[in-house]
Amino acid sequence: MRTWSIAKGHGTLNDFVILQDRHALLSPTADDVRFLCDRRRAVGGDGLLRVTRAEHFSEWDGDPELWFMDYRNADGSISEMCGNGARVFVRYLLDENLANGDHVDIATRAGLVHATVERDGRITVTLGRPRRDAEPTVIHASGRDWTASAVNVGNPHAVVWLGGDAELASLDLAVAPEYPAAVFPEGANAEFVFPIDSSHLQLRVWERGVGETKSCGTGVVAAAFDHLSRVGAAAGRVRVTVPGGSLTVRLDDAGVAHLTGPAEIVLHGTVTLPCD
Amino acid sequence: MRTWSIAKGHGTLNDFVILQDRHALLSPTADDVRFLCDRRRAVGGDGLLRVTRAEHFSEWDGDPELWFMDYRNADGSISEMCGNGARVFVRYLLDENLANGDHVDIATRAGLVHATVERDGRITVTLGRPRRDAEPTVIHASGRDWTASAVNVGNPHAVVWLGGDAELASLDLAVAPEYPAAVFPEGANAEFVFPIDSSHLQLRVWERGVGETKSCGTGVVAAAFDHLSRVGAAAGRVRVTVPGGSLTVRLDDAGVAHLTGPAEIVLHGTVTLPCD
Repeated sequence: MRTWSIAKGHGTLNDFVILQDRHALLSPTADDVRFLCDRRRAVGGDGLLRVTRAEHFSEWDGDPELWFMDYRNADGSISEMCGNGARVFVRYLLDENLANGDHVDIATRAGLVHATVERDGRITVTLGRPRRDAEPTVIHASGRDWTASAVNVGNPHAVVWLGGDAELASLDLAVAPEYPAAVFPEGANAEFVFPIDSSHLQLRVWERGVGETKSCGTGVVAAAFDHLSRVGAAAGRVRVTVPGGSLTVRLDDAGVAHLTGPAEIVLHGTVTLPCD
Repeated sequence: MRTWSIAKGHGTLNDFVILQDRHALLSPTADDVRFLCDRRRAVGGDGLLRVTRAEHFSEWDGDPELWFMDYRNADGSISEMCGNGARVFVRYLLDENLANGDHVDIATRAGLVHATVERDGRITVTLGRPRRDAEPTVIHASGRDWTASAVNVGNPHAVVWLGGDAELASLDLAVAPEYPAAVFPEGANAEFVFPIDSSHLQLRVWERGVGETKSCGTGVVAAAFDHLSRVGAAAGRVRVTVPGGSLTVRLDDAGVAHLTGPAEIVLHGTVTLPCD
């Protein structure tokens, strides 16, 4: 019998179990992650955010004293990056006095992330320079083929542009989209999006290892990046409405994406894991 | 800002937020219940079990020193009884040293419930004498009409008998069933069930105020009661497989139903509720 201290938080209803494991002594298995993220059997979440000193990750060659965001999907698989997760991770560090000030750097599998606490309490994280992975490709979802932009935001995305909200509402995302393996060898998240106006998008997302979620930070950035490039803007600010709320993406002159949105910790507790 | 101590538990994956409110000082509103049961925004559960001394409930005229199971559905509405909830409620009382021994009585809106802790750790609760509320009636679910038995187990149930597992698997329970108001003035839970053999049933359930769930204790009792009466048995033991696990129902010679199954507490914590 193992009893672990956990927290739970969410950003625009993308929710996470948070496990503080400073010295990498707990090292949750994929089974542990699936259990913790099970919404009926245990705590429930779209994924797990493990809070561990960066020195314990051989893949990290930066400052060893940073906190490393060890993100796992609800199915136990490892993911490079999660934009809403990064904001919730920073909120947790601040709440627990593991970091302080208005600027916090964290280590992730997708590299260093800079976080800023806005005056209204929202948190902004940098998500690197989105880039195009390939020419537009074709994915299959909701019973038909769609042309998709292949965008990388530390993790791979397929961005599909729709005609309007009726088309968005009618999508059946209960079944996983199918991707061309040549373009997305490790799969991808899929964003289905339409422009409400020139600086405001509406979006639904299907996440690898999870299914449809209420929000996905990197997906929102991928859609905003693709939108700005479609309208010929090298930089700019885009608001994105997702089922779980509203986020803002700024693409700066250096091509770096900044994701701003709410992040809150709602639960602290201890959970008893089943015997091995 | 209010911070409440909560626990979470489940019986065959029918899961509950548990709120200890001994002296009825917290008195959660329907909004509070909806928040606590929200799987992304807060803790998540099919319902809330509030643990309060019976003396604080004017509708209770029994022993005022018992613990009253104040059960609320996830949508904030009040429910008379929840069989899996009663087992989880008793497990919580035992874990928290609010009760002890192998026999525990609790107060509920459906009357006194006797609980027994089995040697293997499962918990048995008495759920009174199931009775027929009316002649068989017709309900509408999954796009067609079905003949349903009207069974009362402290709360109303419509039990529909199916031909086999293929029919059970193909049901679409995303949409609420429609009930004749004359038979079910307060609505009902609906159980869709078929007999694997003479003492083993398989079942899916749609719960008032929740939707389809992995399990429903009173629904399992309603189906077992109806099954025994269909095969002409006044008493007997029936195993019932639900999506969340396995339960056993015993109907004794006095017509009292006993529900046996697992019940566990998985999480203890504190949750921060939004400002009013």
